[in-house]
Amino acid sequence: MPNQLLAGKKGIIFGALDDQSIAWKVAERCVEEGAQITLSNAPVALRFGKIQALGEKLNAPVIAADATSVEDIENLLSQSMEALGGKVDFILHSIGMSLNVRKKREYTDLKYEWMLKSLDISAISFHKILQTAMKMDAVNDWGSMLALTYIAAQRTFPDYNEMAEAKSLLESIARSFGYHYGAQKNVRVNTISQSPTFTTAGSGVKGFKEFFDYADKMSPLGNASAEACADYCVMMFSDLTKYVTMQNLFHDGGFSNMGMSREVLAPTEESE
Amino acid sequence: MPNQLLAGKKGIIFGALDDQSIAWKVAERCVEEGAQITLSNAPVALRFGKIQALGEKLNAPVIAADATSVEDIENLLSQSMEALGGKVDFILHSIGMSLNVRKKREYTDLKYEWMLKSLDISAISFHKILQTAMKMDAVNDWGSMLALTYIAAQRTFPDYNEMAEAKSLLESIARSFGYHYGAQKNVRVNTISQSPTFTTAGSGVKGFKEFFDYADKMSPLGNASAEACADYCVMMFSDLTKYVTMQNLFHDGGFSNMGMSREVLAPTEESE
Amino acid sequence: MPNQLLAGKKGIIFGALDDQSIAWKVAERCVEEGAQITLSNAPVALRFGKIQALGEKLNAPVIAADATSVEDIENLLSQSMEALGGKVDFILHSIGMSLNVRKKREYTDLKYEWMLKSLDISAISFHKILQTAMKMDAVNDWGSMLALTYIAAQRTFPDYNEMAEAKSLLESIARSFGYHYGAQKNVRVNTISQSPTFTTAGSGVKGFKEFFDYADKMSPLGNASAEACADYCVMMFSDLTKYVTMQNLFHDGGFSNMGMSREVLAPTEESE
Amino acid sequence: MPNQLLAGKKGIIFGALDDQSIAWKVAERCVEEGAQITLSNAPVALRFGKIQALGEKLNAPVIAADATSVEDIENLLSQSMEALGGKVDFILHSIGMSLNVRKKREYTDLKYEWMLKSLDISAISFHKILQTAMKMDAVNDWGSMLALTYIAAQRTFPDYNEMAEAKSLLESIARSFGYHYGAQKNVRVNTISQSPTFTTAGSGVKGFKEFFDYADKMSPLGNASAEACADYCVMMFSDLTKYVTMQNLFHDGGFSNMGMSREVLAPTEESE
Repeated sequence: MPNQLLAGKKGIIFGALDDQSIAWKVAERCVEEGAQITLSNAPVALRFGKIQALGEKLNAPVIAADATSVEDIENLLSQSMEALGGKVDFILHSIGMSLNVRKKREYTDLKYEWMLKSLDISAISFHKILQTAMKMDAVNDWGSMLALTYIAAQRTFPDYNEMAEAKSLLESIARSFGYHYGAQKNVRVNTISQSPTFTTAGSGVKGFKEFFDYADKMSPLGNASAEACADYCVMMFSDLTKYVTMQNLFHDGGFSNMGMSREVLAPTEESE
Repeated sequence: MPNQLLAGKKGIIFGALDDQSIAWKVAERCVEEGAQITLSNAPVALRFGKIQALGEKLNAPVIAADATSVEDIENLLSQSMEALGGKVDFILHSIGMSLNVRKKREYTDLKYEWMLKSLDISAISFHKILQTAMKMDAVNDWGSMLALTYIAAQRTFPDYNEMAEAKSLLESIARSFGYHYGAQKNVRVNTISQSPTFTTAGSGVKGFKEFFDYADKMSPLGNASAEACADYCVMMFSDLTKYVTMQNLFHDGGFSNMGMSREVLAPTEESE
Repeated sequence: MPNQLLAGKKGIIFGALDDQSIAWKVAERCVEEGAQITLSNAPVALRFGKIQALGEKLNAPVIAADATSVEDIENLLSQSMEALGGKVDFILHSIGMSLNVRKKREYTDLKYEWMLKSLDISAISFHKILQTAMKMDAVNDWGSMLALTYIAAQRTFPDYNEMAEAKSLLESIARSFGYHYGAQKNVRVNTISQSPTFTTAGSGVKGFKEFFDYADKMSPLGNASAEACADYCVMMFSDLTKYVTMQNLFHDGGFSNMGMSREVLAPTEESE
Repeated sequence: MPNQLLAGKKGIIFGALDDQSIAWKVAERCVEEGAQITLSNAPVALRFGKIQALGEKLNAPVIAADATSVEDIENLLSQSMEALGGKVDFILHSIGMSLNVRKKREYTDLKYEWMLKSLDISAISFHKILQTAMKMDAVNDWGSMLALTYIAAQRTFPDYNEMAEAKSLLESIARSFGYHYGAQKNVRVNTISQSPTFTTAGSGVKGFKEFFDYADKMSPLGNASAEACADYCVMMFSDLTKYVTMQNLFHDGGFSNMGMSREVLAPTEESE
C-alpha cells in the first residue's frame, strides 16, 4: 500500500542481511514509499549475506561499515550524502550481536571482554552513528533516527542473556541523544521494541521457537511480523510523527502490557 | 500532505467543539486522507460549538450523543453505520471534563459525586463506547480505537486535579479492553498522551499559560501542536500500525522522558 | 522477629476479615512491633468476620466504618484518636470489591452502576480517608499512608476484570494525594503491589488457583506470602522509609519484572 | 534508632570514601543495627579517602579491591568470608565514575574508550561482583544485593552525561541477575534510586548545586539525605523485605512521580 509517505526523503538502513531481516523489509518499504536510500552492514555480512542483490533491486548503493568504527561511519555518511545528493532524513539501526550467546556462555558465567564487545556492537554503535552524524551535520532538520530493540530491556527473559543489557543501553542512548539532537536540530530519536521475529539472527537463539509461540499466544493480536515492523518504521520516518521523540515504542501485538492471557494459562480450555 | 492513508475507511470522531479542538483537526485530516466520518459531541456542545459548520465542510453527519449514555451511543453507532454504509474502522475519543476543576474545588477538597461524574464523562465513556461497539459488532476487524490522554496519568501535576485520576482510569480501560477486542476481533485500542494544547477546554485550567510554556521549554522539540497530534492520530488509524495495541503513546516533543532541561534550569544562561 | 520498629506509633488498619487477610497479619505485626492500633471494616464484615477476636487479642478497638462514607470515616478517625490518645502515624487501606466480578459479568459486559460502586469502594475510599484525615488534621507529621494494590493496574490479567481499573485509580490517588500530603505535612502515601495471595477475597476469583501457581512459577522467589507482606508494611510504616512517597512498590518475588521464566516455558524440562 | 534489624548478619560495603559518602553512612548504620561488615574501595580511594578511620571505628576490615577486576573481587570475597567467619548476607555497590564527565567531554562528543571504562566501573562491576559471589557460593540463601542508582536511567538530565547509560546498564544487570540469583539461591537483587546527594563525587558535577535545589523543590518531601538512604538500605538488607527483588526503588522524596510542582513553577508566589 504505497502512499508516497517518504517522497523526497533520503535515508540509511543498517543491518539488512537476507530477506528474513527486518532491515531488509524496511529498505523495501522505504523505497516503495518514495525514499532514496543507501544500505550498510559489516564487511563480513556483506560477504555472506545477500545485501548486494537488495541494493541492485532497490537501486541503493551498498556501503560496508563496521558500526563500531567511527572512521567507517564517517566514510559511510560521506558516501551516502554524495550518493543521495544531500543530507539524510532518516537512519535505521538494526544491529545486535552477543558474543556470549554465540559462544554459549550463561548469563552467570559471562566473559567480560565479550560483554564489552557485545555492548559496543549492539548499543554504543548507535551513539557512534548519532554523534558522528551530528558532528558531520549529516542529518536534515526534523530527521528521524530509529533503532530496533526488544522488551528484554525492561523485563527478564533468561535466554536473552546479556542482550538485555545491550538493549537497555541502546534505549538509554536513544533517550539521551534524543534530547541533544532534538534541542539542536529538531531531530527525533526513538526505538521500536518489536515482537520476537524469525530472522536469521533471532531464530538462532536457544529455545526461540518455543518462545516465539509463547509470545504469539500471549499477544492479543499475535506477534507482529517483520513486514508490519517495516510499516511502523516507515511511519516513524514520515512527517506524521514529527513530535515523537525519546520514546521506546512497543510494536508487539500487545505483549508488553499483558500480564497473563487465557490462551497461555489454559490452552486446553480455549473452547469454554 | 495527504497520502490517502485512510482511503476507504470509515470513522467516528468524538469531541470536536471548535477549530481549536484536537478532534476538529483530526476530523479534517481524516477526511483529507480519504476517510468518511461522522462527528459526535454532547447535545450542549452541539448547541454552543461550531461542529455543524465542520460537518458541512467535511460532508460528515453530526450526531448528538451524551457519551455517558449507552442508549445515546447505541443510537450514534446505528446512525453512523447507516450514514457511512457499513461498520466503522476507527473511533476517536477526545472527551474530558472535571466538575471539581470547573467548580474550583481543590484536590484535597473534592466533592465525590462530582468526581464520579468526572470519571464517568472522561474515562468510563470510553468503556461504554467500546463495549457498545463490540456488542453491536460495529467495528471492522483490525479497526483502531483511540483516546486522548495526558501524562498526569503517570506523574503529578497539582493543578490537573482529579483529571489525573480520570486519565489513569482511561488508560487502564484502553489496556484492558485492548486485550478483549484484540483477542476477539483484532481491533486495537490505544491512547495518545499529548502535550498541553491550547484548546478551549485546556486553556481554561488555572495557570495553563505558565504550564504550557514550562512544558514547551522542557521538551526538546517543543510542545506538539494540535495539528501534529492529528497527523499522529491518522497514522494510528492507518494500516501502518496494525500491531500496536494496549499502548499509551507519548506525543509530546520528548517531555515525558525529560528529567531536567538546561532551558528550564538556567533560562538566563542559555547563551553559555 | 520483633524489633520495636513501631514503638510509640499509632495506626488504623482497614480491611481485616479473618486470619487469611493480609490486613489481619499487618495488624498482628504492627502490634508486635510496638504500635497501638484500631481496626476497622464495613459493618457487614464485622458481623460475618472474626475481627472482634483479633481486636481482643491485640487490645485494639474495632470501629465499624463504611469506607465509602465520609461521615463514617470522620467518626472512625475521631474515635481512633480518642482511643489511641492522639493523632495517628499510619493507616492501611486493604479494601477491594468488584460487583461485576461478584455477579459474574464479563469485562465486555459490565454494568456501569456496579462499576462506579466498585471504584468507589476499592479506590475512591482511599481518597476519602486521606482527604478526611487531612481536614481533621488526624495524622502526625511524617506519617505513612499505605494501600494494597495489584499489578493488574499496569498489565492485563483478563479475569481480574474491572478491578484493573479500580487499582489504576487507587494508585493514581496515592500519587496525587502524596504530593499534597507531602507538601503540607510530610506525610507519605504509597501502594504495595502484592503477589496473588490466598485470602478469602482473592481465592474466590475464577481460576485463582491456576493463576496463583503460574505467578509462583514466574517469580524467582515464588509468590510473596501475606506474612511477608505484613513485614513490608511494617517497614513502610517505620521511620526507615521516611522519604519514600508516591511510589507503587512491588512485593511479588520478582514477578513484575519477569518476561518469561524457564519454569513456565518448559515445565517438563526443569531437570535439564 | 537502632533496632538490631541486622543482628547476626554479615556484609560488604563498597564505595565509602569519606563521611559524605552514602556508603559511609550505610556502613555505620549496618553496624549500629548489629551487622558485622568489611569495607572495600579501590586502592587509590583507600590512599586518599578516610576509610581506614571508618574501619577502625566500626571494627571492620578494610580490603582494597578494584571492582572491575574479577581477581580483586575474588580476593575480597575470600578475605571477607574469613574475617567475618562465613558467607555474607548483603553487599552494597556504591560505585560510579564517568571519565568523560571528569574530562569535560560533552555527551555529543564522547570518547568511546572512556565510555567503555565508565560502564565497566559503574555498572559491569556489579555483574562481576554478583557472578563472582555466585561462583564462590559466597552469599547465604535469602541474601540481599543492592546497588545505588539515579533516575537519569529513566529520564534525561543533560549534565548527567554518559552516567545515564551507566545507570541504565546497572539497573538492567540488577533485574537480569536478580532472576538467576533468586531462582538459584533466593538471593534478591535491587537498586535504590536516590535523590541527588551532596557527596564528594556528586557535588563535583557541573551545575550540581542548582540541580540539587531544583530537585529539592520538586520533591514534596524534599531531597532524601544520605542518612535517610542508609536507613532504607538497612531495611533492604533486613528480613523485612525478603520478597522484594529485581526492583528499582525510588528513594527521592517523591521526585520521580512529579510532573511539576507549584514551588518550581511559581517560586515567587509561594505565599499565595
